[in-house]
Amino acid sequence: MQQKASSDSKIVISEVMMPHQANVAGNIHGGEIIKIMDSCAYATARRYSRTNVVTARIDEVQFHLPIFIGDLLICTGQVIYVGQSSMEVAVTVDVEDLETEGQKRALTAYFTMIALDKKGRPTTVPRLMCETEEEKKAFSEGERRYRLRKQSKQVEQ
Amino acid sequence: MQQKASSDSKIVISEVMMPHQANVAGNIHGGEIIKIMDSCAYATARRYSRTNVVTARIDEVQFHLPIFIGDLLICTGQVIYVGQSSMEVAVTVDVEDLETEGQKRALTAYFTMIALDKKGRPTTVPRLMCETEEEKKAFSEGERRYRLRKQSKQVEQ
Amino acid sequence: MQQKASSDSKIVISEVMMPHQANVAGNIHGGEIIKIMDSCAYATARRYSRTNVVTARIDEVQFHLPIFIGDLLICTGQVIYVGQSSMEVAVTVDVEDLETEGQKRALTAYFTMIALDKKGRPTTVPRLMCETEEEKKAFSEGERRYRLRKQSKQVEQ
Amino acid sequence: MQQKASSDSKIVISEVMMPHQANVAGNIHGGEIIKIMDSCAYATARRYSRTNVVTARIDEVQFHLPIFIGDLLICTGQVIYVGQSSMEVAVTVDVEDLETEGQKRALTAYFTMIALDKKGRPTTVPRLMCETEEEKKAFSEGERRYRLRKQSKQVEQ
Amino acid sequence: MQQKASSDSKIVISEVMMPHQANVAGNIHGGEIIKIMDSCAYATARRYSRTNVVTARIDEVQFHLPIFIGDLLICTGQVIYVGQSSMEVAVTVDVEDLETEGQKRALTAYFTMIALDKKGRPTTVPRLMCETEEEKKAFSEGERRYRLRKQSKQVEQ
Amino acid sequence: MQQKASSDSKIVISEVMMPHQANVAGNIHGGEIIKIMDSCAYATARRYSRTNVVTARIDEVQFHLPIFIGDLLICTGQVIYVGQSSMEVAVTVDVEDLETEGQKRALTAYFTMIALDKKGRPTTVPRLMCETEEEKKAFSEGERRYRLRKQSKQVEQ
Repeated sequence: MQQKASSDSKIVISEVMMPHQANVAGNIHGGEIIKIMDSCAYATARRYSRTNVVTARIDEVQFHLPIFIGDLLICTGQVIYVGQSSMEVAVTVDVEDLETEGQKRALTAYFTMIALDKKGRPTTVPRLMCETEEEKKAFSEGERRYRLRKQSKQVEQ
Repeated sequence: MQQKASSDSKIVISEVMMPHQANVAGNIHGGEIIKIMDSCAYATARRYSRTNVVTARIDEVQFHLPIFIGDLLICTGQVIYVGQSSMEVAVTVDVEDLETEGQKRALTAYFTMIALDKKGRPTTVPRLMCETEEEKKAFSEGERRYRLRKQSKQVEQ
Repeated sequence: MQQKASSDSKIVISEVMMPHQANVAGNIHGGEIIKIMDSCAYATARRYSRTNVVTARIDEVQFHLPIFIGDLLICTGQVIYVGQSSMEVAVTVDVEDLETEGQKRALTAYFTMIALDKKGRPTTVPRLMCETEEEKKAFSEGERRYRLRKQSKQVEQ
Repeated sequence: MQQKASSDSKIVISEVMMPHQANVAGNIHGGEIIKIMDSCAYATARRYSRTNVVTARIDEVQFHLPIFIGDLLICTGQVIYVGQSSMEVAVTVDVEDLETEGQKRALTAYFTMIALDKKGRPTTVPRLMCETEEEKKAFSEGERRYRLRKQSKQVEQ
Repeated sequence: MQQKASSDSKIVISEVMMPHQANVAGNIHGGEIIKIMDSCAYATARRYSRTNVVTARIDEVQFHLPIFIGDLLICTGQVIYVGQSSMEVAVTVDVEDLETEGQKRALTAYFTMIALDKKGRPTTVPRLMCETEEEKKAFSEGERRYRLRKQSKQVEQ
Repeated sequence: MQQKASSDSKIVISEVMMPHQANVAGNIHGGEIIKIMDSCAYATARRYSRTNVVTARIDEVQFHLPIFIGDLLICTGQVIYVGQSSMEVAVTVDVEDLETEGQKRALTAYFTMIALDKKGRPTTVPRLMCETEEEKKAFSEGERRYRLRKQSKQVEQ
């Protein structure tokens, strides 16, 4: 069966934040940022699975810092756990004020993406190879979240 | 201390989905929908607290159905739990194909919003009155999520 | 022949006004508001006729109040008069400053929409039942406008 | 008192129509076109009065032809009647399919714009000189509409 | 062989600059202006050749003046040189602050557009008639740029 | 005097191309791509100079390949030559069809950016250290273009 390394799945999406993306308070609209994160999760899962993909869930979106007009936003996606046809993509957002040194973590979230075949039905994705300790830990936490969600669905039914 | 009814906080945001909101597959971009949900959570929390508000977290965003160009999207926000300065807003998205009868549930999510005073510091929000059984159940589930998140923060630190 | 109640046709479209919708003076661009009103008239007429619809005319667009960034805009459409294949939709826009109580009427207009069949030809729409005194008065005013427009077309030719 | 020629007030706004401006049916969204017409009326009235201006009314917006992606849209504004602080701007939209010869009239409308001073209060505009027979006829029709609207306001009150 | 006059190819595209087109500094985003120039070159070349066209190169884009929100931007395209299937379009941008007299040159650039047939292959364009001294000079400068670019391509290979 | 390495100035901007960025033919609008390139040049020059920057010129924009909806666009900027207050940024665009392997070069261009102080006057930028053979060659070609442009300005005057 086909295998892919978690580190190979990494994709970076980045943009300079513009005035038209501002919210009522003048900062960048949270929804605009999640739109970029969703595109990043889409690209990460699509490149990993080489199939069409759709977003099924988003969990634990945390806003650590406000983002301002003019900031360079760096959004990184990495597949950290896979089920049969689902991929959990960890998405982080860092920001850099271009006039000073260094980047800061602004958001984190987990996106669950489903691989679809040409007819729109769920299809099998490659198995995930985790090489570093960090990747192995992320995988087992992804597995825990996957089981919790499966359980809560059975409770609902 | 000031009190407000959960049912009074309800706000409905609605839009007809247009081609410029499509994703690569031709459906409506998930990020566009979450942008609308974020605006709805913003309006709900702002009207409830009568202060400026920011999004702190989003949890359990579930995509139940794809949304298509031409659909009427109806997004509803309601404050279901409040802490000291935080409000949990349950946001649901229903869609209606305007040529047929009836609406279908397309997304659900929980937004945690923080009330801010004029200097950008967290400020106290009115206490929440829950009148129906459904509202009381939503409140205690909101409380459970609130405590889980507080716990996991303490573990992190 | 099929009949529908005027009150059943009512649709509400609502949005929080964002900075990217501003005009040169910093208020919300009149054209952005009419775009939302046009979408509302489209949704109202489409749900009423269950066919494709196009805008044929817009009359008496009145701007009563400026609209500001951060306002909640509530746009309501209702079919008030129907001809053979045309529907007159009264569209109103109310605004709510989310930090204070109450809504104010900001715009009013009449949209004339035409029902089209699959080949793009005008097609018959359901007859309109007017139940309240207000609806009956709106219907006869709609009829008067309809006749005036028909007359002025004959004068032109 | 200052005078200006109607013909000097003419402004042309033009754009190639792009896919992001499409409506649900794939033609150009009526609201997008009115947004361009409103910008044209704004520019015409602003250049005529050399003051800030706002849209007060729009009348008799008539859609004569659908507009398609790729069309060149040519929007022309001309001041045809002035009151104390109001200007009536006739706005027409012509379209040209760039692969064939000739332009066609797609929309017409009348915009009533109000000149505002620095404090946002209505301010006097230059008197209008009408030179051609066509301009004189447009002026007296503008005057008739102006009086009708004034009358109907008195009836309302 | 078919011939067309350079002066007949002229197209004007114009827009009032809006806040959503601003860059980080609050002026109009250079990229927004080039987007309008590209649309203008597209319309000019398409009307000249009556075929589909694509942008192959842009040369010597010079920003002479910043452009501000509220300015009327007037973008003019004119075919000044043609090869077998390529057209060089000179594109200029003038701006007018609507509260004062007169226009100023803000940008200039040369766009090289290629005419394509229905299958997407380069196709022959009409020969260019240059009537004024200015047009003849522009033509020979266009020819010089065309040869320089051909040369540098041969050097690359 | 302060020095910075050319390689340290490198910035990558990347986006998944969406339907709202399409041109009339259904590919990605050239103007949209140059808007992204301009943002990339802005970020590169701003991080290099740690000042506000504006675009003064763009040269030799070459479109090597069309870009399609769904492609991952990777835009890279690097300062390759500096004058007193000007920086030449080489900007390249690569595209990746996410369902297949590998990236292809789609566009290249040179952006001349000017560093501005708080009052908007040109200000000195750090000197550029070129370490590799490639960087040294790029620097001397940048210098040649810089002199040619200076010369042609003197001819104009």
